[in-house]
Amino acid sequence: MSNPILVEVTRGGLVESRHRGAIVAIDGDGNTVFEMGDVEAAVFPRSACKAMQALPLIESGAADSYGFGNKELALACSSHNGEEAHVALAEHMLARAGKTVEALECGAHWSSQQPVLISQSRSFERPTALHNNCSGKHAGFVCACCHQDIDPAGYVNYDHPLQQTIRDVMEDLTGASLGQDNCGTDGCSIPSYAIPLKSLALGFARMGTGTGLAPIRAVASKRLFDACMAEPFYVAGTGRACTRLMQIDPGKIFCKTGAEGVFVAFLPHMGIAMAVKSDDGAGRAAEAIIAASLARFFEKHDRIYDALMAEADRPLRNWNGIHVGDVKVTDALRQ
Amino acid sequence: MSNPILVEVTRGGLVESRHRGAIVAIDGDGNTVFEMGDVEAAVFPRSACKAMQALPLIESGAADSYGFGNKELALACSSHNGEEAHVALAEHMLARAGKTVEALECGAHWSSQQPVLISQSRSFERPTALHNNCSGKHAGFVCACCHQDIDPAGYVNYDHPLQQTIRDVMEDLTGASLGQDNCGTDGCSIPSYAIPLKSLALGFARMGTGTGLAPIRAVASKRLFDACMAEPFYVAGTGRACTRLMQIDPGKIFCKTGAEGVFVAFLPHMGIAMAVKSDDGAGRAAEAIIAASLARFFEKHDRIYDALMAEADRPLRNWNGIHVGDVKVTDALRQ
Repeated sequence: MSNPILVEVTRGGLVESRHRGAIVAIDGDGNTVFEMGDVEAAVFPRSACKAMQALPLIESGAADSYGFGNKELALACSSHNGEEAHVALAEHMLARAGKTVEALECGAHWSSQQPVLISQSRSFERPTALHNNCSGKHAGFVCACCHQDIDPAGYVNYDHPLQQTIRDVMEDLTGASLGQDNCGTDGCSIPSYAIPLKSLALGFARMGTGTGLAPIRAVASKRLFDACMAEPFYVAGTGRACTRLMQIDPGKIFCKTGAEGVFVAFLPHMGIAMAVKSDDGAGRAAEAIIAASLARFFEKHDRIYDALMAEADRPLRNWNGIHVGDVKVTDALRQ
Repeated sequence: MSNPILVEVTRGGLVESRHRGAIVAIDGDGNTVFEMGDVEAAVFPRSACKAMQALPLIESGAADSYGFGNKELALACSSHNGEEAHVALAEHMLARAGKTVEALECGAHWSSQQPVLISQSRSFERPTALHNNCSGKHAGFVCACCHQDIDPAGYVNYDHPLQQTIRDVMEDLTGASLGQDNCGTDGCSIPSYAIPLKSLALGFARMGTGTGLAPIRAVASKRLFDACMAEPFYVAGTGRACTRLMQIDPGKIFCKTGAEGVFVAFLPHMGIAMAVKSDDGAGRAAEAIIAASLARFFEKHDRIYDALMAEADRPLRNWNGIHVGDVKVTDALRQ
């Protein structure tokens, strides 16, 4: 079985490239609202599940102990651009736990955003782990350990107490079994577990609605979603889809991207979460699919709907600024 | 009908992403050696057909008149990194025709290669059209015009005499009809024509073998392929697939990538050309497919075969250098 073509890339009115994928929207009780493609197939959520991984930071009491507000919590859930404000805040989070960049085990890389990379390369010789797009999540990990008097050394490893806790949290939220059998290593070296796309969406629906969760987890989940929606710049950064989507109408949309074409979202006004995977891992496809899928839940042609569809159907311009084609969702995704 | 999955991206032993595509290998007489997927479907060759577009530079006498050797001809066929040597040579080509960067109509952009971009951003404020990956092709266009006393102004436009000539050349080589109906605009603003993948491969088989071509065109084609194989750095640059593949055993492989997952190649010892399109436009897929397809024409486990298969199956390492997965061709592409 092959997943449907959900996004086309055109040039001169002809289709140049095609993206297949799967999407599922689900409520906190596990009722599917709509689905396309094989939504039972296991996917690596990658960075899309950072809000799940940030729960121990709150549930352990570390976030309150260290005085973290919306910005810090958003950064703990982020795949950020490595802009100055992101880097400074990650460093601040570590400092609250008495730690420095040395405690981070995520590795270092330049920003994936060209304007930021140019600025970075003019400012310093090489990036540190603070510039890693995952440094906020890792700073949160270190803080969660330190607050609980757990040695953070090796916190990226499968057997470290923190990763065991995260595994328990994610199993509770998604209902999926996580273990060595479905475990891979993420770009930042922590375990990433392949789980059914539908289970991933269900986990976010439960986080957003609190359905079936212990009260402390329901409260912590809401706090993380609210923090991300309040500070979308700290979830991604300048020019990024997550930030743009959450800025359309603050508080109306929570969303988070992950590598290899994953995207998750939650709509507070509907109590519905969704998860996307583009088969080929293309971010441009996942962004278009999630935007069009979110648009279904707003009145056609109201401001939010139009803003979302402008993300779902995007013009491609060449080096001279000429409109040469479009990235656009297929009819399957249009209302 | 959907094209077969030709490339898989794994993580922790599980498949994370999948790339579908089509590949055809053909000889100069039009006999198909092997094919997978829909090879009659039209694709935009994009930069993969730059060697075709460079023929007027030689056939007009401009290349000889301006004293262009292998490096200049390779650059005329290139999608280069914008490294210093590329930029200097493009400027030199223009100077031979009495022109400067002002004559280029391709637009400007930073290098797509991160190490080059970092170096560029530390050396100058913003890139010029000379840094555009297509500047060698465009310099060749300007030279072809100037040598023939054709005003190069507007040389990127569909109706300019140069583009009319290129259209005739490409129709002659591929047997496909090119016109407004199948024309789009490329990244560098010149016309790009959607043609069947098989016709694209046939055009390169004819260029490589000379079969069915006027003598002047056969000679010019061989000269361009030989130039690219002699100077692979000038066809792409540091760290690029085209350059690596042509460096494996100089003179044994001609190849050229194009945007949105296109790749073409010619094997002089077999007289066979091939063309690849990954459905989703992923370069990583096109690179793996072309490498594995080229490997079929060498003895299993000789040095060239092994080097090609090392391009077809590539480890993925994370920011800490850990081997987290692989990009690899599926069994369909293995001998």
